[in-house]
Amino acid sequence: MRGVVMYAPGDIRVEDLPEPKIVEPTDAIIRVSATCICGSDLWPWRGLDEVTAPAPMGHEYVGVVEEIGDEVTTLRPGQFVVGSFFASDNTCEICRAGYQSRCVHAVPMGAIGTQAQLARIPLADGTLVATPDTPSPELIPSLLAASDVLGTGWFGAVAADAGPGKTVVVVGDGAVGLLAVLAARELGAERIIAMSRHADRQAMAREFGATDIVEERGDDGVAAVKELTHGLGAHSVVEAVGTQQSMMQAIRSTRPGGHVGYVGVSHDVELPGLELFFAEIHLLGGPAPVRRFLPELIDKIWRREINPAKVFDLELPLADAAEGYRAMDERRAVKTLLTV
Amino acid sequence: MRGVVMYAPGDIRVEDLPEPKIVEPTDAIIRVSATCICGSDLWPWRGLDEVTAPAPMGHEYVGVVEEIGDEVTTLRPGQFVVGSFFASDNTCEICRAGYQSRCVHAVPMGAIGTQAQLARIPLADGTLVATPDTPSPELIPSLLAASDVLGTGWFGAVAADAGPGKTVVVVGDGAVGLLAVLAARELGAERIIAMSRHADRQAMAREFGATDIVEERGDDGVAAVKELTHGLGAHSVVEAVGTQQSMMQAIRSTRPGGHVGYVGVSHDVELPGLELFFAEIHLLGGPAPVRRFLPELIDKIWRREINPAKVFDLELPLADAAEGYRAMDERRAVKTLLTV
Repeated sequence: MRGVVMYAPGDIRVEDLPEPKIVEPTDAIIRVSATCICGSDLWPWRGLDEVTAPAPMGHEYVGVVEEIGDEVTTLRPGQFVVGSFFASDNTCEICRAGYQSRCVHAVPMGAIGTQAQLARIPLADGTLVATPDTPSPELIPSLLAASDVLGTGWFGAVAADAGPGKTVVVVGDGAVGLLAVLAARELGAERIIAMSRHADRQAMAREFGATDIVEERGDDGVAAVKELTHGLGAHSVVEAVGTQQSMMQAIRSTRPGGHVGYVGVSHDVELPGLELFFAEIHLLGGPAPVRRFLPELIDKIWRREINPAKVFDLELPLADAAEGYRAMDERRAVKTLLTV
Repeated sequence: MRGVVMYAPGDIRVEDLPEPKIVEPTDAIIRVSATCICGSDLWPWRGLDEVTAPAPMGHEYVGVVEEIGDEVTTLRPGQFVVGSFFASDNTCEICRAGYQSRCVHAVPMGAIGTQAQLARIPLADGTLVATPDTPSPELIPSLLAASDVLGTGWFGAVAADAGPGKTVVVVGDGAVGLLAVLAARELGAERIIAMSRHADRQAMAREFGATDIVEERGDDGVAAVKELTHGLGAHSVVEAVGTQQSMMQAIRSTRPGGHVGYVGVSHDVELPGLELFFAEIHLLGGPAPVRRFLPELIDKIWRREINPAKVFDLELPLADAAEGYRAMDERRAVKTLLTV
């Protein structure tokens, strides 16, 4: 089968790989219908994360069940499924509390690689959610978004306690930030401030429900949010970047007693204890437990209540994955969908 | 009047000070019945916080209203009152959300000093809560505890989401940590693990409701908590010290999706972003909004349901305040009550 492999920063190749096999009786093999490139895939591409080459790439996926292990009971070959970027048993205490990305048996799908024609999904019963029927093709990109960026933006908004009457700030205008805007709107937020300095992303943020745009960053960005919130700061702030500047901007934009939901993978961040102490805010973040939200998100997509697919502004065949990475790195694309 | 003044680290004097006057029409003057020495007063005493000498000391207090400003409407001279260590208007949006220590008009009582015969209380209507009647003398130490240590331990337990079915860890065996144990019990926690290596404090923790004691610190302490919680970590962890070691111990003792409530004033703490990201825990802390809890705490004390006064294991007249500081610094006393 064909699959994407990173050999070094900037060196992405699509090559023949051995077909995955059932290893554990709880595994399933899926034929991938669509996959995509994540903002987090750009860190090693840029040389900012170490690459243990050659590394199979990708952790977002939708597809059709091809084969199931002997202990898989809830799925059958032929079903269309959406899964999270962490495989999880969905039965342990941590999963039952809603933190499936930290399941005691969690397997990061990025270590397996889903930018490929086939993928082995561990803990298939706990990881995969079947759609009600075979989706019509135009729904596939939105279902793919649910696999990570939508689920992650959603978790960010939930972790930030977005809801009716709340002013929500979203720091970061990548696909996750934009979908956090959509999530905040779906959760009933009164006012949604998107922080973005790119006209195309501002437009998409407005389409997803942003009521205000702030172009300033850092201290100026914080001052602009304070200005919009009677000097108090926002109730809810979603951080969707992962840098020191974005985390501090998120923390400082939050009113005392407010909530920061942080979903940008942390890079060289150190939070100063004393400032955090006197900020008196709620913090919750980490790899999104997408599995918690999948049934609800699939349902909203199936009913065509939301259209998160809009974040895919570039669609390429798997064979052209390298161009997809370049386009995202150069910000020519918000997010690249790879058809398989 | 007589009052406590710090001239330099280790140099505490009790001397004649000018009597406080009503400055703002929202002020009240109270005649202090009892005050005490806080763990946070020891930081400057030890030279670990800067001292802008001479500094009036103290921020915990109960007493009798002596005089009220023209705009004070809910209090009258002669009433016995308990107040928080932050004066607050209790009407702004932040106060109404329950974060009175970050009131938009907050005044830290430590800047005024309550280790004295009289004290000016700003924003008296919002800050002071009158008891149902003049308390019998044996209730006064417990009411004094409500002013800070009990209210702070309570906030720690609430911020850590302590409640029925939960395993709660308390890091720190000072007065706040011990009263966080009491709070966790009152909030219905199923299991309460106190981390302490001092026999007398272990005994007090057990009296307040601790079901388990862990003597190890750092990584060994974390391992001991994991051992007691099927390898998962606690649901709720209260941090009541404020050092890098205690914060990391708290974070690492918490299961994914669990809650850390941190109330130890932060000293040289830097939280590593990536570890925090993958810990996937809720964090909430800061100076406790004691005012939120005062009515409930006064009620529990009045009904003699709780006896937080046990943390006062040394009682001295105000004139002997210096000995009170020394005794706490040398850990001869958990907490010193000063009679006025």
